[in-house]
Amino acid sequence: MKKHVTRRNFLKMTGAATATSGLALAGLANAKEGSALPANWDETFDVIVIGSGFAGLSAAIEAKNAGASVVVLEKMPVPGGNSIINGGGMAVVGSDIQSAHGVKDSVETMLADMYQAGLGLNYPEQARMVAERSNDAFEWCRDYLGVKFKDTLAHFGGHSVPRTHTTTIQSGAGFVQPMLAKCEALGVPMQKKIYVKRLIMDDTDRVVGLEVIRNYRQGKEDSKKVRFLKANKAVVVASGGFAADVAYRSTQDPRLTEELATTNHKGATSECLKELIRLGANPVQLSWIQLGPWASPDEKGFGLAPIFAAYAAYPHGLMVDPRTGKRFVNELADRKVRADAIIKTGHPAICLCDAAGTKPAAHVMGKLLERQVVRKFDSLQELAAFYQIPGDELLAQVGRYNRFVTEGKDTEFDKPLSMGQQPISDGPFYAARFWPKAHHTMGGVEIDTEARVLDISTHQPIAGLFAAGEITGGTHGACRLGTVAIPDCIVFGRIAGRNAANA
Amino acid sequence: MKKHVTRRNFLKMTGAATATSGLALAGLANAKEGSALPANWDETFDVIVIGSGFAGLSAAIEAKNAGASVVVLEKMPVPGGNSIINGGGMAVVGSDIQSAHGVKDSVETMLADMYQAGLGLNYPEQARMVAERSNDAFEWCRDYLGVKFKDTLAHFGGHSVPRTHTTTIQSGAGFVQPMLAKCEALGVPMQKKIYVKRLIMDDTDRVVGLEVIRNYRQGKEDSKKVRFLKANKAVVVASGGFAADVAYRSTQDPRLTEELATTNHKGATSECLKELIRLGANPVQLSWIQLGPWASPDEKGFGLAPIFAAYAAYPHGLMVDPRTGKRFVNELADRKVRADAIIKTGHPAICLCDAAGTKPAAHVMGKLLERQVVRKFDSLQELAAFYQIPGDELLAQVGRYNRFVTEGKDTEFDKPLSMGQQPISDGPFYAARFWPKAHHTMGGVEIDTEARVLDISTHQPIAGLFAAGEITGGTHGACRLGTVAIPDCIVFGRIAGRNAANA
Repeated sequence: MKKHVTRRNFLKMTGAATATSGLALAGLANAKEGSALPANWDETFDVIVIGSGFAGLSAAIEAKNAGASVVVLEKMPVPGGNSIINGGGMAVVGSDIQSAHGVKDSVETMLADMYQAGLGLNYPEQARMVAERSNDAFEWCRDYLGVKFKDTLAHFGGHSVPRTHTTTIQSGAGFVQPMLAKCEALGVPMQKKIYVKRLIMDDTDRVVGLEVIRNYRQGKEDSKKVRFLKANKAVVVASGGFAADVAYRSTQDPRLTEELATTNHKGATSECLKELIRLGANPVQLSWIQLGPWASPDEKGFGLAPIFAAYAAYPHGLMVDPRTGKRFVNELADRKVRADAIIKTGHPAICLCDAAGTKPAAHVMGKLLERQVVRKFDSLQELAAFYQIPGDELLAQVGRYNRFVTEGKDTEFDKPLSMGQQPISDGPFYAARFWPKAHHTMGGVEIDTEARVLDISTHQPIAGLFAAGEITGGTHGACRLGTVAIPDCIVFGRIAGRNAANA
Repeated sequence: MKKHVTRRNFLKMTGAATATSGLALAGLANAKEGSALPANWDETFDVIVIGSGFAGLSAAIEAKNAGASVVVLEKMPVPGGNSIINGGGMAVVGSDIQSAHGVKDSVETMLADMYQAGLGLNYPEQARMVAERSNDAFEWCRDYLGVKFKDTLAHFGGHSVPRTHTTTIQSGAGFVQPMLAKCEALGVPMQKKIYVKRLIMDDTDRVVGLEVIRNYRQGKEDSKKVRFLKANKAVVVASGGFAADVAYRSTQDPRLTEELATTNHKGATSECLKELIRLGANPVQLSWIQLGPWASPDEKGFGLAPIFAAYAAYPHGLMVDPRTGKRFVNELADRKVRADAIIKTGHPAICLCDAAGTKPAAHVMGKLLERQVVRKFDSLQELAAFYQIPGDELLAQVGRYNRFVTEGKDTEFDKPLSMGQQPISDGPFYAARFWPKAHHTMGGVEIDTEARVLDISTHQPIAGLFAAGEITGGTHGACRLGTVAIPDCIVFGRIAGRNAANA
C-alpha cells in the first residue's frame, strides 16, 4: 500500500482530465496540510537541522564541513535541549583513557551490556554502529571540538566495565558549548524559538522544506507567524524525545501520568514525532520509556542528584529500603532494573556513602547540601533516625556491604566492585532520597544505519529526510544504558549530517 | 498540529483564489491517496465492517440490529480469521457456571490478574470494561447466538481462579459459526477475498468509505480489480493483529525474525494497521508481541498442542527442562512468564501428564497422538529416555510435584492447585515438546471506551471510524491473559457496531 501518489497518478486515479475540471476539486477536498507547497519560500538552505542538542549540532557541523549551507532550528529560547542539562557522561569503548587505566573492554562487551539492558529488543546494526564508532566520536569531540574530559573513568549502572568518559564540568554543556562555538566558527546560523509546524513533501514524495512558526512560545502552536523554509538537499530531525509530554507518553505507558515527574526540560514533547509519523515514518518501540532511578523527589527536573548518585553514592555506597533498612538491588544494575526495584518498594529509597565516596561529585556537593537534596550526618544512627530506617538493620547492612567490598565480591546482588571501592568509613555520611522520574524515550522513528527515515509501508527511505538521537527508536531496545545517549546522538548525528549534505 | 485541512482552509493556505488557478495545481502536487474521493461509488452501506473474526462479526450483528445496512469484508477466501482457529476459551467473571462450581470471583480479581500479566501497562478503562461486561458478552453468545459451552471451567495461566468458559467443540469456530449463521439470518452479507487498499476521508475529515481490491489473493496487492465502497455512517476496523507479518513485527521486536514460527493464519498482517496510522490513528504499545508458551515445534501454526497444554498438561501435569529434568516455572503463570522461561533454557520444554489429566482434551488426543505431537509412554523411564531427560531427576520431580498436589501447595513455583488436580499416577503418560510461537499483538491503534479511533495529534475521535479486537492496543498492556481475547473482541466489537450504526 503505497502512501503517496505523484501528481500524475493522482490525476489519473481521480479521473480528472485537467486540473480545471470539477473532479480535480473533488480530489482536492481533503488534501492534507503536508500536501501543500507554499507559494513562496521565505528562506532556502541546503540542509535544515531541527534541534540543537548533541545530535542536531553534530549533524550541522558535519553537513557544513561537507560543503552544505546549513541552519539549525531550535524551538526553545535557549539552545541545547535536554543535552545541555545532561550529566555529561559518554560511554566509549577502546579509548586511550581506558588503556591508560588498564580497562579491558571491547565492542562485543559493550554490545552485550546494551543487549542485556535492552532485553534483546535492540536493533543489532544500529547498536553495533554506536559501540564501534564511540571512540571515533569521542576523539572527534576532544580533538576537533575541544571538549574537555576528565582523565578518570566512571562505572555506570549496567556496564560491565568502567567506560564512561565525563566532561570536566560534569554536564552535557561540556559538549554543547564547544559544538555551538564550532557552529559559529563555521558559519552555521541558529534560529531560536522556531516551532516546526509541518514537513513539506514535493510531488516526488521528497521532503523539501518546512512550515514553521517563529517567535514561538510554548502553548502557542496556533500562531500566525508562519514562515516557509526550503531545504535543497535534506532535513535532519534531531528534535529529541517526549518524556516531558505527559499526554502523549501516557498513551504509550498509562502509568506515566502527571504524578510522575520528569528529568526533561519542558520542550521534550512529541509534535515532531507525530509529524514524522504523519509523513509515513514507522514508529517503533514507543512504549518503552525509561525512568531514571537516580532522580530526587526533593528537587525539580534532572537536577544535581543524578551526579551524586551515578558518580558517588551508587558506585561507592549502598542503597536501602527505609522501611526495612536492607539493600534490595544491585546499585549498579541498569536503570530499568533499579527503577523497577525502587517502585516496587512503594516509596523513595535512601542511598548513602561516606566522605571519600563523594569525591567524584565534589563540585556539586556544596549545592546539593545547600538545597537539602543531599544531607550530611555524623553517624549512621543519626542518618537512620532522620529517614526513619531501622537503625540496627542499617548498621548490619553497612557491615555486610563492607565485607563484600573487602572480599571484592557482592554475593547478595552481584554489584561490580572492581573500581577501587573502599569500605564505608566512620563518617560523616551523605545520603539522598531517590524516586524515579521519566527520563528517556527509547522508541522513535525507524532509521537505517545511514540515518535515513524509513517508510512504514514500503520500508524504503523517505527521500530528503534523516533523523538522529532520541527521536529515533531501536538502538537501545527496552532500556538505554546510562551515558550511551551521547555516543548514539553523536555517531548518528554525524552520519545524518554528512548524508544530508550529499542527499 | 492538525492533520487535515478542509477544502476551504486548504485553498486559503495555498493562496489559491479559485480552483482553476495554477496555485491550486501546485497544491495538488502530492495530495495523498487518502485524499482522493472516487468519481463514483460502486456500492453503498451504512456500516462497513473489515474482518470476520469475533470482533467484526459481533460488530456486524449489533450494527444490523441497530437498524443499519451492513456488509462484512474478509480478505481471505474463508471467514473467521484467527478467531476460527482460536482455542474457544472465553474468560468470564460472574457467570452462572462459575456460581454452579462455587468459584469466588470478581471484576476486581480479574482486573488484578490482567494488570499483573500486563505489567500495569493496561489502559484502565478499557480493561475494566472487558471484565465488567464479560458475563453480558457470554450470555449474549450463549442465549442469543446459541454458542454451546461446556458446563465445566478451565483454569488458564495467569488467572487466579478458574474463569475460562469453553465451547463444546473447544475451538473458536464454536463462536464464529453461530455468528455467521446469525449474520445470514439477519441479512448481513459477507464479501470474501476483499483487500482494503485505503480508507477514504471526505472534506470534513470523516471516514466515508473504502477503496478495495476484489478477488484478492495474498501477495497480489497491486491488482487493478478496484472497487469503491461507501459507508454512509461508519467503518468498523476489526482486521486483527500482525503476528504473521514477519517483516513488520520484527521492526517492533527484532528478535521475532522468520526463524520464529507463528500460531496465526497467514492473513494476520499489518496493512490495515498501517492504513489507520496513515489516517492519523495513534499506534500504541506495538512492540509488545506475545509468544504462546504452549505451541509445539512438531506441528505448524496454532495446531492442537495448545489444547493439550492449556486444558490437560499445564494444569494437571508438570513441565521440565529436558537437560536437567527439573521444573523451572509455574505451569500456570501468564504466557509471557512461561514463554520467557522456556526461551531462557534455550530448547523446547517437555510437559507431561497422566491419562486422567488428558480428559479435558480427550476429543483431540487421538489426532495429537496420530500426528506424534503428543506421545504416549508406559513409564516415566521410557518417557525420559525418549526425550533424553535425566531419568532419576524426572522421577524425583514427579514425586516432589505429587507431594505439592497432595498438600495443596506448590512451595517451589506457587502453581495454583485448587482445581482438583490429582497426583500423577502410574501411567501411561502423555508428553509433548513446547517452544513459543508468535501469537498475539497486544499493541494497535488507540481507541476510547466507545471504540472510537483517536487521532494522534488531537486525541479526538476520527469521525466515522471505529475499531475493535486485536487491531486495537492498550487493553492488555504487556501481556494478554489467555482467553481474554474473546471477551475483549466481543465486548468492544458490540460497542463498535452499535456506535457505528448511530454515527
